Amino acid sequence: MSDAIERALGEIRFGPDGLVPAIAQQHDTGEVLMVAWMNREAARLTLTEGRACYWSRSRQALWRKGETSGQTQRLHELRLDCDGDTVLLLVDQHGVACHTGRRSCFFRAWRGGDWAVIAEPDIAPEELYPERPGQ
Amino acid sequence: MSDAIERALGEIRFGPDGLVPAIAQQHDTGEVLMVAWMNREAARLTLTEGRACYWSRSRQALWRKGETSGQTQRLHELRLDCDGDTVLLLVDQHGVACHTGRRSCFFRAWRGGDWAVIAEPDIAPEELYPERPGQ
Repeated sequence: MSDAIERALGEIRFGPDGLVPAIAQQHDTGEVLMVAWMNREAARLTLTEGRACYWSRSRQALWRKGETSGQTQRLHELRLDCDGDTVLLLVDQHGVACHTGRRSCFFRAWRGGDWAVIAEPDIAPEELYPERPGQ
Repeated sequence: MSDAIERALGEIRFGPDGLVPAIAQQHDTGEVLMVAWMNREAARLTLTEGRACYWSRSRQALWRKGETSGQTQRLHELRLDCDGDTVLLLVDQHGVACHTGRRSCFFRAWRGGDWAVIAEPDIAPEELYPERPGQ
């Protein structure tokens, strides 16, 4: 483990549960793709491997984004906020970020007194997860 | 209280602590300005007043962004992610979002093995909080 990476991690203020929220943003278009969570090991892997790695709260396991779906996020730059308790990942998203097959997870917008679906899937979910139907 | 607003709130999955993370993004440039937290009442006020309102975890109080500093965020659109547990606010930021006087809270970037400060304050913090020096 390099000292530099440890210095990077040392500035991140992980919460009482060991996690910080991490926003993934497409580096060139500015589109907010998703929000997930990172523990220290996920942040370390993200920096060392140059691809987004999160902590899945539902599975309680490290989650290299795209390991099942192939929809990886190459790390362009990692940024930290003023309090050190939120991470912003500028990434290059391969394919789609959302498990529904949409480019971004933020596809519902409050418009005219109702929730509007503002994006359709680019890929059918069953193509993303051929071995896990219904996921 | 309108039924529509209650319908909006009904789709937001607040966590065990009653909160969801909320990302504020400048609506036209795509710049991610800050991340804060919302409880149900903060989300309600944001929709009814058309300006960002958060829940301050440090002060344990509702926080109408800009009420002290004047740096308000006019709501352009509220979006919700696939799981319903993260909110994206497209806003028009008046002035700066960060308490350090910078436009965005994400002013530290990991570059070349160290944290680089990539933005300088637009406003001196003591101008933002003239009655609370040091804040």
